[in-house]
Amino acid sequence: MADCLFCRVVAGAQPAARVLEEEHCVAFLDTRPLFPGHVLLVPRDHHVTLADLPRELVEPLFTTAQRLCRAVQAAQDAPGAFVAMNNVVSQSVPHLHVHVVPRRPKDGLRGFFWPRRKYTGSEEMEEVAAAIRGALRP
Amino acid sequence: MADCLFCRVVAGAQPAARVLEEEHCVAFLDTRPLFPGHVLLVPRDHHVTLADLPRELVEPLFTTAQRLCRAVQAAQDAPGAFVAMNNVVSQSVPHLHVHVVPRRPKDGLRGFFWPRRKYTGSEEMEEVAAAIRGALRP
Repeated sequence: MADCLFCRVVAGAQPAARVLEEEHCVAFLDTRPLFPGHVLLVPRDHHVTLADLPRELVEPLFTTAQRLCRAVQAAQDAPGAFVAMNNVVSQSVPHLHVHVVPRRPKDGLRGFFWPRRKYTGSEEMEEVAAAIRGALRP
Repeated sequence: MADCLFCRVVAGAQPAARVLEEEHCVAFLDTRPLFPGHVLLVPRDHHVTLADLPRELVEPLFTTAQRLCRAVQAAQDAPGAFVAMNNVVSQSVPHLHVHVVPRRPKDGLRGFFWPRRKYTGSEEMEEVAAAIRGALRP
């Protein structure tokens, strides 16, 4: 896809600070990181969301995400890692990308990061769970 | 692990609004959701982080995450999904859990969600990328 930023990175037509080149995926630094060492891992082929990723690419992509967790933590001397994908909403580039971000205690993300709500009770929870069960496909 | 909350959920010793039972993983509602329909997907076996997950469980876990994305979006009439793992830092329960959260435009998460920084320049970026490349193991 000529107009896709991450397809251009994969093809080498868009400069990027690459950290890894694999058969099925490429990883490079996010230019506007949450923290230095924030990496984006993308499949070479153009797939928009996690749900769109063909089954045969799931293991290659996420075993690479595992390696990247260890590497960004080691390189940044960070005890933790945040791994995330925005699908459609808040997805700035419509080419699946796994954020792998080194995390440290008190790095400032914790407070605002999970603005949790509460269900009104077990009845509402059971309703919502039943709707998801009903929507699940094999 | 008797003292692990999610091992107890897997074993049925801790109540949970379950949405899916698979050979290798279980999914249930987060009791303090970002939005209703926020699901946690956990491996049945006790593994703490994504990096700890044995290779043979990577495809089962993430193909299930794909199904859950579609299901929570359909059940909650949401066009997007946020998929995330906190590893060690901000990880409230030390048993790997994949958050699958339905997302809608203007649902209030966007603004604070990605407090991006900037690298000072391509030199700093290249330094950081080199450190990660050096830390990568096969």
